[in-house]
Amino acid sequence: MDLQECLQKNESSRRTDRSLVRVCDLTPDTAGQTVWVRARIHTSRAKDEEVRTDRRRGADGQTKRCGRTDEEVRTDRRRGADGTDDEEVRTDRRRGKQCFLVLRQQQFNVQALVAVGERASKQMVKFAANIVDVEAVVQKVEQKIESCTQQDVELHIQRLFVVSQAEPRLPLQLDDAVRPDTDGEEEGRATVNQDTRLDNRVIDLRTTTSQAIFRLQSGVCQLFRDTLTKKGFVEIQTPKIISAASEGGANVFTVSYFKTSAYLAQSPQLYKQMCICADFDKVFCVGPVFRAEDSNTHRHLTEFVGLDIEMAFNYHYHEVIESITDTMVQIFKGLRDNFQTEIQTVCKQYPSEPFKFLEPTLRLEFKEAVALLRSAGVEMGDEEDLSTPNEKLLGRLVKEKYDTDFYVLDKYPLAVRPFYTMPDPHDPKYSNSYDMFMRGEEILSGAQRVHDAQLLTERALHHGIEKIKAYIDSFRYGAPPHAGGGIGLERVTMLYLGLHNVRQTSMFPRDPKRLTP
Amino acid sequence: MDLQECLQKNESSRRTDRSLVRVCDLTPDTAGQTVWVRARIHTSRAKDEEVRTDRRRGADGQTKRCGRTDEEVRTDRRRGADGTDDEEVRTDRRRGKQCFLVLRQQQFNVQALVAVGERASKQMVKFAANIVDVEAVVQKVEQKIESCTQQDVELHIQRLFVVSQAEPRLPLQLDDAVRPDTDGEEEGRATVNQDTRLDNRVIDLRTTTSQAIFRLQSGVCQLFRDTLTKKGFVEIQTPKIISAASEGGANVFTVSYFKTSAYLAQSPQLYKQMCICADFDKVFCVGPVFRAEDSNTHRHLTEFVGLDIEMAFNYHYHEVIESITDTMVQIFKGLRDNFQTEIQTVCKQYPSEPFKFLEPTLRLEFKEAVALLRSAGVEMGDEEDLSTPNEKLLGRLVKEKYDTDFYVLDKYPLAVRPFYTMPDPHDPKYSNSYDMFMRGEEILSGAQRVHDAQLLTERALHHGIEKIKAYIDSFRYGAPPHAGGGIGLERVTMLYLGLHNVRQTSMFPRDPKRLTP
Repeated sequence: MDLQECLQKNESSRRTDRSLVRVCDLTPDTAGQTVWVRARIHTSRAKDEEVRTDRRRGADGQTKRCGRTDEEVRTDRRRGADGTDDEEVRTDRRRGKQCFLVLRQQQFNVQALVAVGERASKQMVKFAANIVDVEAVVQKVEQKIESCTQQDVELHIQRLFVVSQAEPRLPLQLDDAVRPDTDGEEEGRATVNQDTRLDNRVIDLRTTTSQAIFRLQSGVCQLFRDTLTKKGFVEIQTPKIISAASEGGANVFTVSYFKTSAYLAQSPQLYKQMCICADFDKVFCVGPVFRAEDSNTHRHLTEFVGLDIEMAFNYHYHEVIESITDTMVQIFKGLRDNFQTEIQTVCKQYPSEPFKFLEPTLRLEFKEAVALLRSAGVEMGDEEDLSTPNEKLLGRLVKEKYDTDFYVLDKYPLAVRPFYTMPDPHDPKYSNSYDMFMRGEEILSGAQRVHDAQLLTERALHHGIEKIKAYIDSFRYGAPPHAGGGIGLERVTMLYLGLHNVRQTSMFPRDPKRLTP
Repeated sequence: MDLQECLQKNESSRRTDRSLVRVCDLTPDTAGQTVWVRARIHTSRAKDEEVRTDRRRGADGQTKRCGRTDEEVRTDRRRGADGTDDEEVRTDRRRGKQCFLVLRQQQFNVQALVAVGERASKQMVKFAANIVDVEAVVQKVEQKIESCTQQDVELHIQRLFVVSQAEPRLPLQLDDAVRPDTDGEEEGRATVNQDTRLDNRVIDLRTTTSQAIFRLQSGVCQLFRDTLTKKGFVEIQTPKIISAASEGGANVFTVSYFKTSAYLAQSPQLYKQMCICADFDKVFCVGPVFRAEDSNTHRHLTEFVGLDIEMAFNYHYHEVIESITDTMVQIFKGLRDNFQTEIQTVCKQYPSEPFKFLEPTLRLEFKEAVALLRSAGVEMGDEEDLSTPNEKLLGRLVKEKYDTDFYVLDKYPLAVRPFYTMPDPHDPKYSNSYDMFMRGEEILSGAQRVHDAQLLTERALHHGIEKIKAYIDSFRYGAPPHAGGGIGLERVTMLYLGLHNVRQTSMFPRDPKRLTP
C-alpha cells in the first residue's frame, strides 16, 4: 500500500510519470481504455430501487449521499454495449457492496461504478467532496446518462485511493446549490440562500454554476485586454493608496499610512488621465476600485473590479465611444463563440434570454431617451438624471424598439455629471458624456474630459470643488483631448448572463455588511 | 481660421475624416507625401551655427529650447535628395524666421522644419511640450539624422496648429531626464534626480526611457497571462479589503470600514488557495498587494503589483515549479523577441548586459547554494536564511558557473519559511519551498502548501500563530495538493532591464515617504 500512502499524504515524496485523464476528455473514443482520473466524489449511492425507476442517475437531484443510503447494490439493469459489462458487475457484486459514484471535475462529471470491499473501503467512497484517484476502465453506455456531462461513457473502477478526505457533513449540498429557485419552490426541495452560499463560499464556488460564472468572467477580462491591446492600448497599473480623495471627499475609505492618513482610490480616473498627459495615448487598466458607499442593493459592492479605459482622440470623442463599444461587442462575440458551455451551464440554474447586441452599437441621445420615457408616461425634466427604475424601463423600451440589450446613452445634461466633464460645444446645458447599458442597467460611465487647465479650474469653481491643484497641474504642460470610461466587471458578467445580484459574480464580495470570507 | 479654433478648443464640435500619420510610420516609403501628424514639440530651435558644426541635429543634447535661442534661421546647408528642397527652404525663409523642430510621439521622433511667420506664430513653436497638428511634406534626407528615431526623413511643415499649449517652463527638461548618469558626470551636464522625477512624474513618464519601460511592463503582464491561459489557468480577482491580517498582524495597513476596521491584503495567498479548494485547479491573478513595511530600500514598495499563481498538482510540487519557470521563460523570450525597441531605448540611458536564461531553468537546492557561498568564503549555518548581500553574491557565483541570470533555489530550511509551507518528506529540517532569482535578486517566493487541515493546525501551533480558523477551515472539505508563488511585477521589469531602483518601474510608486502624485 505504498502508493496509497504516498497519495494520501501528498507531500511530493516522489514523482511518477502516471498521467491523469481529464473528465471532460472521457468520450466514447476512450472506451475500453484503462485510465487514471483524479476527481471529487460528487455523489455516492448504493441503493438500486431508484436506478430501476429513474434511468437518469447521478447529479439529478434524486441522489442521496451514500452515508444515508448505504445499502448493497442489487441492480440487475444492463449497462454497456459490449456484453462483458453485466458479467463484470456480477463479479464485482460477489466481492462486496457496489456503489455508484458521480465524479466531478469543475463543470464536468462522469458516472463511475465501484465495488466497495477489498479495494475501496466504505469510508473512501462514503463522503461527497473526498478527492480520489481512480484507476478505471472506460465503458460505453447504451442509454445516455442525462444527469452527467459525460453522457456516453461510465467508469468501471478497479482501484481507488483517497487523495484528500473531506469532513462528513458539508455546510451546504451542491445539488441544492445548483437547483433553480423555481424548482425548489414548486417541488418543495431545498435551495441555498445567498448568505449561506457566501458564508461557505469555497463550497459554493464548486458548483457547476459558479465554475461557469468565473470562467466566463476570466474570459471577459481576457477579451477586454486582448481587444484593446490589438487597438494599440497600453496596460497601466495605477496606485490604490492615494493621498487625496480625488473625486470628492465622500464615499472614500481611509487608510492609516505610517504616521499619516491616506485613502483608497475610488477609481483610477486621475491616474489614467495623467498617463494620457504623459503621452501614453491609449491606456487601460484592470484593478480593484473602492467605494465606501453604504448601499445595500443588488448591484453595489464596496470593492469591485474596474475595467478602465482612457484614450486621446483626434477630433471627436465619438472616436472613443466607438472604441469602447467595439471592445464591448468583441467581448460579447467572444463570450458567445467561446463560452457556450459556461453560458448553458448557468442557464440551467438561472434561465435567461440570450444577450442581444447590434453592430454598430445603438447610440441614443439623452433627449431621445427622455422622449421615449415620456411617451411611456414618465414625467421628468429635461435636465433631470435618470433614476434606476427609469433606466430599467428605458432598457425595456429600447429592447422593444431596437431589439438590443446593449446601447449607449450620449449627451447627458452637464448638471448631472462631474466637474471634469467637457460641455457640449453646441448646447452648454448638455455635455460630451455617456453611459452604456446592458439589459437596462448601467455598466459604464464616461465622458470627454476637460483637458485645459484653465477651463478645468473654472468648472471646479462652479462645482465648489477645492483641493484639486495636483489634478489640475497635470494639464498645465500640454494635454491632448481625451475621453474614457470605467466598466464594472461584475456587472458586465451579471448582466451578460442575466443574473440578478452582483454578489453572484464577485468571488468574495464586499459590501457594507460583508467582509468575510 | 475655423479649423484652428476647433483644434485649439478640442471640444468635439465636429468630426473630420482627416487621418493622422504616426511618427513611427514616417519612413522613406512616405517621401513626397503630404501628411498630417499630431505630436509634441520636443525641441525647437532657430539657431544655425550648431547646424553647421554638428550635423546630428535634434534631440542630441546640444539643442536649446527656442525660448532661449530664438534667432532667425540662416542655415544654407543642403537637405533632401530631390533638388526641390533647397528652393523650398529659400521660399520659406523669405516668409519669415525658420525653425527646426523635433516632433515626438512616445518613443519616436522626427525632425521638422517650419517657417515662423504668417502660418505659424513664434508662440506656437516656441515651447517644448506644446502639442501641435502639422500638415507637412515628407522629405528624404541625404545624411541620416542620428538624433531622431526617424533618421531617413524630415517633415517640411506647411501648416501648424496648436492642439494644446504647455506652460513655458517645464519642471524638468526631457533631454536631461534621459541623459545617462555617467554622461552627466563626465560632461558636467544636468541630469535629473529621482525625487524631482517622481514629483513631476507626468513629465518624467514622457521620456523615451519611461515610455519604453512601461510598454515593456505591459508586455510582461500580457505574456504572463497569455502563457498561463494557454496552460489552462483561470484568472481570478481576489478582494483587497480583508477582515483579518492573513499573514500575521505585522506590516499590514488598517482601513476604517464603516463602523469597524479592516486590513489591506498583503497578498492574495489565502484567496488563491481557497480557489484551489473550490476546484479551480489552476489560477492566477494580477493585482495590487500592500505591505506596511517601513523599508526604504531600492527594491521595496508599500504597494506593488503581484503576479500570483496557485496550482493543484498531480504528484509532486516540481510540476508547479516547472509551470512557473516555463512561464518566466516565455516572458523572457517574448520580451526579447517583441520588445527590442524598448530594451534598446532603455539601454541608451541605463546600459546593461542582455538578460540570460537557460532551458530548462537551472534549479539548485539550498544546500548547494550554501556550499557555493562557503566556497567563496561566506560563513553561514545550514539552516540560516540568505541575507540580501549573500543572495547577490550567489547570483554572481551562479552566473559565473552556469551563465544564467535566472534560476530557482529549492528546498529552503523549514525554519525560515511560513507555517503553511509543506515540510520536505525526506528531511524535516527542509521544506518543499523555493525562491526564484533574476540577476541575483529575489522575484518570487513560493512553496507547496500544507493542504491537510490537521497538519496545518499543528504547524500553526508550532509557529505560535492563532486566529486563523477561517483559513484552516477552507481545507476541511477536501483540498488537492497544491503549490504556488507570488511574483513582484516591478522587480521583474527592473531586473530584466538591469535597472537599479524599483521606483523606475512603478508608474506612481508608493513608499513610506511617498504618497503623491
